[in-house]
Amino acid sequence: MPILELTDYAGVAVFAATGALAASRKELDIIGFLFLAAATGIGGGTFRDVVLGATPVFWVVNPTYLVVCVAVALVVFFTAHRVESRYRLLLWLDALGLSAYCVMGAAKGFAATGSPAVAVTTGVLTASFGGILRDLLANEPSVLLRREVYVTAALAGASAFTTATVAGLPLWAASSIGMGTAFVVRGGALRFGWSIPVYRPRPGRHPDDVM
Amino acid sequence: MPILELTDYAGVAVFAATGALAASRKELDIIGFLFLAAATGIGGGTFRDVVLGATPVFWVVNPTYLVVCVAVALVVFFTAHRVESRYRLLLWLDALGLSAYCVMGAAKGFAATGSPAVAVTTGVLTASFGGILRDLLANEPSVLLRREVYVTAALAGASAFTTATVAGLPLWAASSIGMGTAFVVRGGALRFGWSIPVYRPRPGRHPDDVM
Amino acid sequence: MPILELTDYAGVAVFAATGALAASRKELDIIGFLFLAAATGIGGGTFRDVVLGATPVFWVVNPTYLVVCVAVALVVFFTAHRVESRYRLLLWLDALGLSAYCVMGAAKGFAATGSPAVAVTTGVLTASFGGILRDLLANEPSVLLRREVYVTAALAGASAFTTATVAGLPLWAASSIGMGTAFVVRGGALRFGWSIPVYRPRPGRHPDDVM
Repeated sequence: MPILELTDYAGVAVFAATGALAASRKELDIIGFLFLAAATGIGGGTFRDVVLGATPVFWVVNPTYLVVCVAVALVVFFTAHRVESRYRLLLWLDALGLSAYCVMGAAKGFAATGSPAVAVTTGVLTASFGGILRDLLANEPSVLLRREVYVTAALAGASAFTTATVAGLPLWAASSIGMGTAFVVRGGALRFGWSIPVYRPRPGRHPDDVM
Repeated sequence: MPILELTDYAGVAVFAATGALAASRKELDIIGFLFLAAATGIGGGTFRDVVLGATPVFWVVNPTYLVVCVAVALVVFFTAHRVESRYRLLLWLDALGLSAYCVMGAAKGFAATGSPAVAVTTGVLTASFGGILRDLLANEPSVLLRREVYVTAALAGASAFTTATVAGLPLWAASSIGMGTAFVVRGGALRFGWSIPVYRPRPGRHPDDVM
Repeated sequence: MPILELTDYAGVAVFAATGALAASRKELDIIGFLFLAAATGIGGGTFRDVVLGATPVFWVVNPTYLVVCVAVALVVFFTAHRVESRYRLLLWLDALGLSAYCVMGAAKGFAATGSPAVAVTTGVLTASFGGILRDLLANEPSVLLRREVYVTAALAGASAFTTATVAGLPLWAASSIGMGTAFVVRGGALRFGWSIPVYRPRPGRHPDDVM
C-alpha cells in the first residue's frame, strides 16, 4: 500500500478514535459513538476533497474508510471506561491525527495545484477541521481556543512537508519530516505546555458592555 | 411527480418548519425565520449533493425548493404563537424530516455508487445534518446529545431502505419501509423515551481538571 | 482589475480583519490570528463556490486571496491593541464585508443559473456565512441571533443588486446599488439600533421544562 494511503488511513483511524472518546465522555449510546467517530474521522478529508473539487469525496469512492471508522468506534465503545483519562488520550490521538492529516492535506493540495501556498493552506485547514468539528458537535471546549499551540503544529508540519517536497525529497522522506515536525510541536505543547507568546494580550469585553 | 421527489419536498418542508420554529423560540424577526428555515430545510441535501459531487446542488438546479422554504417560514411566522409547545412540535416535525431525508440520502448515495455502505452513510449523515445545523445556528441544545435515540432512527431507516432495495423491492415499497422504520423508532423515542443503554457510563471530567 | 474582482478582494480582506479581531479578543497567538482571518475571509466564498459547483474554489485557483488574509492578520496582530473597542470595529468591518459579499454571491449565482431566486439565496447565504463561521469558531455570541438586522441587510443588498441586474443596469451600477443598500441597512442597525418588530414575541422555554 502506498505511503500516502497508509497515512490517510492512520489519520482517519486516530481522528475517529478521538470522536469516539468524546462520545464516551458525553455518555452517548453506540450509535452516538459511530456518528462522532465517522464525522471526526472523515470530516477533514471531506472538506479537503470538496474544496479541491475532488468529488465524489474519498470515502464515497472507497468505503473502506467507513469500515475503519466503525471498527474504531466499536473498540473504543468496549474499552474506553478502562482508560484513566479519556480526555488526555483524546488529545494525544488528536495530535497523531493532526500530524497525518496536515501531510495528507498538503500532499493533495500540492498535487492538485502545484502551489505551495495552497498546499500549506489545505494542510492546515483539513488537519484542524476534524478536531474543530468534533468539539462543536460534542459541545467540548474547542481545541482551537486552548492556550497551547494547535493550528501552529499543523502549520509547521504542512510547511515542512511542502518545503521538503519543493526541495525535491522523495515522498516518504517529505512525509516523515512533515509528520514528525507536526507531532513534535503538538506533543511538546501537550507535554510541556509550549505556547507562543501573544503580542499584547487584552481580553475582549462582553458585547453587551461594548455596544 | 415521482415518489423520490415528493419525499424530497416533504423533507425540505418539515425541516424548514423546524428551523422556523427555532427562530420563533429565539424571537427572531421574519428574516431570521426565512434564514433558519432555508438553512435547516436545504442543509442536509446540500451536504449530500456536495459529498456525492452532484453539483450544482439541488436547490440551485431547481429553485422551487427555496420557494417551499419561504412559504413554510411565512406560515410558521404568523401561526407559531398559537402552538402550545413549539419545541414539542419542532421535535415531531424533525422526526418526519429525519425519516424523509434518511431515505432520500440513501437513495441518492446508492444510485451514485451502488455501495450499500455509502448509501447508509449518506442517509444517516444527511438526515442528521439539518437538525444539527439548526441547533448550532440557533444555539439550542443539540438533538445529537439528547438522551433519546436520534441518529439511531436515521440509521435504522437508511438500513431498512438499503436492505429492501438490495433485496429487489420496488422503489415505493423500499421508501415506505425506510421512512416507516425511521419514524417508528424516533417517534417511540419521543413518546416513550426509548433509549439504547450505554455500555458503561462514566461522565467526562472538565478539561481543566484533567490536564 | 474588473469591479467584481475588486469587490471580492475587499470582501475577503474585511472579513479576514473581523476574524483577526475576534482572535485578538480571545487573546490567541499569531497563528490563531492567521487561522481565524483565513477561515472568516474565505469561508463565505468557499461555500458559494461549492454550492454552485465552481470547484476548485476561488482561493485554490488564485492563492492571492490567501496572501491577502495573511497580510491582514499580521496588520491586525500588531495594531489591534490600540483600538479602543475591537468589537465595535469588528461589527463595522463585518458590515462592509457583508455588503461586498452579498453582491459577489448574487453575481456569481446569477451568472451560473440566470435565476433571480438562486442569486438572492447565494448572496444572502454567502454573505452571512463568514460571520456565522467566525462566531462559531471563536465562541462569540452569533451575529445571527443579535437583535439588530443582519441577514436582512444581506437580503436587501442581494435583492437590490439582482433587481438592478434584471432591469438591465450595467454591472458597476448594480454592484454599487447592491453594496450601498446593504451597508445603509446594516449601518443603520448598528448606529441607530434599527430592528424589524417581531410578530408576536414569546420566548422559548427550556427543553427540559417542555418535555
